[in-house]
Amino acid sequence: MKKYLGIDLGGTNVRVGVVTEDGTVLQQVKSVSYAQDGVTKVLDNLKQMVYGIEDYKSCSGIGIGLPGPCDTVHGKMVLSTNLPGFAGYPMVEELQKDFGLPVFIDNDANVAGLAEARVGAGKGLPIVFYITMSTGIGGGLIVNGQTVSGRSGFTGEIANLIIDRNRKKVNYLNIGAIENEASGTAIKRKAKEAMPDRTFEHTGQVIDLAVEGNMQAKMIFDQFTYDLAQMFSEIGAVLDPDMYVIGGGMTKSADKFMPTVIEKYRTLVHEQLRDTPFALAKLEEPGIIGAAMLPISKGC
Amino acid sequence: MKKYLGIDLGGTNVRVGVVTEDGTVLQQVKSVSYAQDGVTKVLDNLKQMVYGIEDYKSCSGIGIGLPGPCDTVHGKMVLSTNLPGFAGYPMVEELQKDFGLPVFIDNDANVAGLAEARVGAGKGLPIVFYITMSTGIGGGLIVNGQTVSGRSGFTGEIANLIIDRNRKKVNYLNIGAIENEASGTAIKRKAKEAMPDRTFEHTGQVIDLAVEGNMQAKMIFDQFTYDLAQMFSEIGAVLDPDMYVIGGGMTKSADKFMPTVIEKYRTLVHEQLRDTPFALAKLEEPGIIGAAMLPISKGC
Repeated sequence: MKKYLGIDLGGTNVRVGVVTEDGTVLQQVKSVSYAQDGVTKVLDNLKQMVYGIEDYKSCSGIGIGLPGPCDTVHGKMVLSTNLPGFAGYPMVEELQKDFGLPVFIDNDANVAGLAEARVGAGKGLPIVFYITMSTGIGGGLIVNGQTVSGRSGFTGEIANLIIDRNRKKVNYLNIGAIENEASGTAIKRKAKEAMPDRTFEHTGQVIDLAVEGNMQAKMIFDQFTYDLAQMFSEIGAVLDPDMYVIGGGMTKSADKFMPTVIEKYRTLVHEQLRDTPFALAKLEEPGIIGAAMLPISKGC
Repeated sequence: MKKYLGIDLGGTNVRVGVVTEDGTVLQQVKSVSYAQDGVTKVLDNLKQMVYGIEDYKSCSGIGIGLPGPCDTVHGKMVLSTNLPGFAGYPMVEELQKDFGLPVFIDNDANVAGLAEARVGAGKGLPIVFYITMSTGIGGGLIVNGQTVSGRSGFTGEIANLIIDRNRKKVNYLNIGAIENEASGTAIKRKAKEAMPDRTFEHTGQVIDLAVEGNMQAKMIFDQFTYDLAQMFSEIGAVLDPDMYVIGGGMTKSADKFMPTVIEKYRTLVHEQLRDTPFALAKLEEPGIIGAAMLPISKGC
C-alpha cells in the first residue's frame, strides 16, 4: 500500500506523520514550529524532522496543512498571520527540491475537510462542506475528493459571511459576520456583556447555563443557534452539499446546541434540502491525515 | 474534431444543435416542446428532431439542459414545474437506449454556466459562478470545467439565499430571499407599490427612472443593488470563485446597475476578494453549447 507524508504546520507546533492511502497513521513526530524565528528556522526544523523518518523517500508524495489561505497553484501562502514571513514565500518549490518528492499545500481547514471527505465522516460523498467552530469559524469545501481552494485561497473561509446586517460593528469583519456572532469568542463576548458579574472560561459554560434555564444565557443561545442555522442555510443555498461535517472546539457541546441549529436550519431551506445530513468530524488526526491526502487527491 | 448533440429542452421550446468540441454550433433545429401534452409526447417529439439530424450517430454524446433541478447521477429531474410529469421519470435511461449514445442532463442554469466556463466569458478558469438574473434569480457552479449539481440538484440555485432577515414575507421563499428582493419581478413589485400611478413593463424602466433621478425609483435602486452586492459577498465568502459570470434578461441594463453592485460588493468582502472579476455572459447559444459540453465534461 502506498504511503504519504502528512505535515500539519501550525503557529505553535509542527507534526509530521507517515500515512497509508487508506488513512492509517503509521508513525508521527512532533516539534514546536519555531514560527517566531522566521522562515529559514521553521523550514530547517521541518526538514530535519522529515530526514529523521527512516524511509521517507519511499513515500509517494508530501502534503502540508498551513494556518492560512494558500495559493495552491504556485505553492505559496497568501496570508500567514501565525507563520510570519511565509506569505508569498515559494515553500513548495524549495521543499520539492530538497525532498525530491511532489509537495502540495493547502490551508488547515481544507486539509481537515479533505480527510473527513476521503476517509472520515463524509467518506466518498461528492460534496462535503467542512465547518470548524472554535474561537473562530472557518471551513473548507471538498468536491469529488479534492479541496477547492479558490481564486485567493478563501473558499470555505466563511468567517466574514453576513447572517444579519442589523448588528453592531465589532472589528474589521463585516457587520453581522458569522464569526462575530456565533464563534466561541463571540459567545463569550456576549455572555460577558450580559452577565458582567460572572466569568466564563469557555463557551460550554454559557451553553450549560442556557440549558439550565438562565434567561440571559438562553437569549444568547437562541440568537447564536439561529445565526448558525442561517449560516448553514446560506451555504446550502449556494452549494447544496451532500453533508456538513462539523469540527473544532465547540463540538464538545454539539449535543447541546446542534439539534436546535438543525431544527432552525430546516425552516430556512427548500424542502429538498431539509434532510441534508450534519455529522461531527470523526478522525483523531485530521491535520496529518488530510495533509497526506493532498498528494493522493492530485493523483500521486 | 469531435461533435456532440446539445439539447435545450424548456417549457415552451426545444432546440437541438450539433456542436463541435470547441463550441461551434454547426446546425440547429427548433420546435415547440409540447410540455403540456405530457412526457411521451415531449420525448417523441424530441426523438424525431434528433432522428432528423442526418449523422447524429457520429456524435460522441448527448447533453440536455432542463428547466429545474436534476439528479444527474440517476438521470432524472427532481422538480419539473415547467415540464409536467418529468420529475422522477428515467429520461436518461430511455434516451440512451433509443439513441445508442451516452446521455447526460443538468439544469439550464448549470448548463449555461458550463458553456461560459468552458468556451465563454470564464474560459478555462477553475471556479466559475454563473448567475442568471431575470424574472427570477438562479445560478450554477462550475469547478474545473464540470458542473456541480448537489445532493438534490440545487447547487447554485440561490433564489432562496437570505440577504436581509428584516424584510416582509412575500411568498413561500424565505423572508429576505434574494429572488424576492432583487429579481426583475421583485423590482417591478416594489416599483408598483411605490408608484401606483405608473405602469412598468420591464425592470429596465425602473432602473432608467432611477438613473434619471426619480427619488422613489432611486430608493428601490439603492436597495436592490445593495441586496445583490450582499448576495455576491455571501457567494464569495463561501466559494471565492475565479469569476462571476452574469446572464439573464436584467443584463440588458447591466451597465446601469452592475458598477454600483460591484462598488458595494467590495465593501462587504475581504481585501483579497475585492478584485474578483464580474463578466457578462458572452455566448449567443449557451443553452445548446452548454448542453453539448455536458458529455465532454464527463470524458466522452
